[in-house]
Amino acid sequence: MSGAMVTVLEFVGIYVFATSGALLAVHKGFDAVGIVILALLTALGGGILRDLIIGDTPPAAFTNVAYLVIPLVAAVVTFFAHPLVRRLTFTVLVFDAAGLGLFCVTGTLKALDFHLGPVQAVLLGITTAVGGGVLRDITARETPALLVVDTELYAIPAAVGAVMVAVAHEADLATPVVAAGAATFAFLFRVVAMVRHWTAPSAWEPRRRQD
Amino acid sequence: MSGAMVTVLEFVGIYVFATSGALLAVHKGFDAVGIVILALLTALGGGILRDLIIGDTPPAAFTNVAYLVIPLVAAVVTFFAHPLVRRLTFTVLVFDAAGLGLFCVTGTLKALDFHLGPVQAVLLGITTAVGGGVLRDITARETPALLVVDTELYAIPAAVGAVMVAVAHEADLATPVVAAGAATFAFLFRVVAMVRHWTAPSAWEPRRRQD
Amino acid sequence: MSGAMVTVLEFVGIYVFATSGALLAVHKGFDAVGIVILALLTALGGGILRDLIIGDTPPAAFTNVAYLVIPLVAAVVTFFAHPLVRRLTFTVLVFDAAGLGLFCVTGTLKALDFHLGPVQAVLLGITTAVGGGVLRDITARETPALLVVDTELYAIPAAVGAVMVAVAHEADLATPVVAAGAATFAFLFRVVAMVRHWTAPSAWEPRRRQD
Repeated sequence: MSGAMVTVLEFVGIYVFATSGALLAVHKGFDAVGIVILALLTALGGGILRDLIIGDTPPAAFTNVAYLVIPLVAAVVTFFAHPLVRRLTFTVLVFDAAGLGLFCVTGTLKALDFHLGPVQAVLLGITTAVGGGVLRDITARETPALLVVDTELYAIPAAVGAVMVAVAHEADLATPVVAAGAATFAFLFRVVAMVRHWTAPSAWEPRRRQD
Repeated sequence: MSGAMVTVLEFVGIYVFATSGALLAVHKGFDAVGIVILALLTALGGGILRDLIIGDTPPAAFTNVAYLVIPLVAAVVTFFAHPLVRRLTFTVLVFDAAGLGLFCVTGTLKALDFHLGPVQAVLLGITTAVGGGVLRDITARETPALLVVDTELYAIPAAVGAVMVAVAHEADLATPVVAAGAATFAFLFRVVAMVRHWTAPSAWEPRRRQD
Repeated sequence: MSGAMVTVLEFVGIYVFATSGALLAVHKGFDAVGIVILALLTALGGGILRDLIIGDTPPAAFTNVAYLVIPLVAAVVTFFAHPLVRRLTFTVLVFDAAGLGLFCVTGTLKALDFHLGPVQAVLLGITTAVGGGVLRDITARETPALLVVDTELYAIPAAVGAVMVAVAHEADLATPVVAAGAATFAFLFRVVAMVRHWTAPSAWEPRRRQD
């Protein structure tokens, strides 16, 4: 991936993550402050958690003012145009999947850059991609969508993208093309999971024992 | 503001923030441990978040034992005297507003000291002032008061105080007098918002479309 | 305590903490992703909070892959064998008490190593021992067990163990034997509190005033 393209995708991902936070705030009847807070938290929470853990302070979200302005714009747009935004739900979810694919890869790469082991980097890649959504749900007093049984796969595609990058890195093959491929794969995996309603299993129930 | 006066105000703010945490714990029927935890979290959570983000570890809350002892005293006092403390609700809210005014200014100034940009510093100033209350509400399983429509302005006065300081800093005018003025303005703004029941708007509802 | 014994106990503690997170996820009907997330968060959350606060990044949980693999194993075992694990509830609680005793001591010692004051070190020792459970409950949308009145003492035994170590350290007596004694005392205190149903008091209610 070229640097410019990564930046554009990153801004799109942040915008869409922020929109999902703002939409939840509107849905819960929160006020303008709540809309802004959930937009910022959803867009930036995952990356901030990652950067605090790897010790890169201040986190990237605080180094470029665009990272703060973009969620604020998303909050303002959602504040006024939420009926329209809601009608575009599927479009928003597709862009959200693009953000998921991108952030699981960039998060893993950044952790590897900071010399974390591959397993740790995978965990931080997933955290980057899904952490903001978990913080959004906790703050809005929703059970995190990630945990419940009837939501389509979200963390699993992120995990697959992160593992692909970490394996490529261990094999000294982490080229931009491989990174782009992993991000695309995670993105498509998430989209197909949505369309086909793929979900993760709940705990295994032994039949005999429960009777 | 003179250093001694800032310290006194800071201690008062911490005491009152801790009291609001302890009162919520009593209201929810939590035990003594819950009262202490919510007192500490409310009083120190915002500053700890700010310091972790700017990379000033250990956070200020862990450098001076008074920062821990004051919330513990507030917890003990509330444990025994909560009926009395509750009767002083308006007084507590006024001191809470003083804490809000002070912490949005000192938080912004500290972030600027650590060379963060003005927008980032404003966000961290607001975080310092309101972060503890959000952590208090999340931990006690309340919807954060900050997000809901029918609570009087709280984050907005903090934002105004933080913006005043950041603008003054950019114009090289961040003198102690300006800082004191910004803190006082945020304090009075909050008090008037309480008295007049000013609230933030919820998302804009287009009339035609909803009919 | 010898180094090898501490490591074994630490691994047992992490495994049992992870199991408590995984069991809660099964109980709430969460999916496999939820089981893994709660296992990791419960096992590692307290230590990660401590390390972020003292500034030891990346946190210890990210430096040894065993710290991540053990909770994953606990999640898989619980996923398949949760009816069996549940039948062992008391055994799990006893091992959990062992983890509590160990982590309140090792957390306090690590904070003292990083030159925090004794009061601060005690607070971080308690955070190490109970932080993961609080994060587990918040994420699963339960009121933290620690806060509610009808749960047996949990933070108090951790606090006693932490205070014993901090006092010994201030008196230059923090030998491995003392540390082992403090951990054992906290462990036994927690077990007795469970068996005898010792709870912390809720806020003091003045009889006359309420009439």
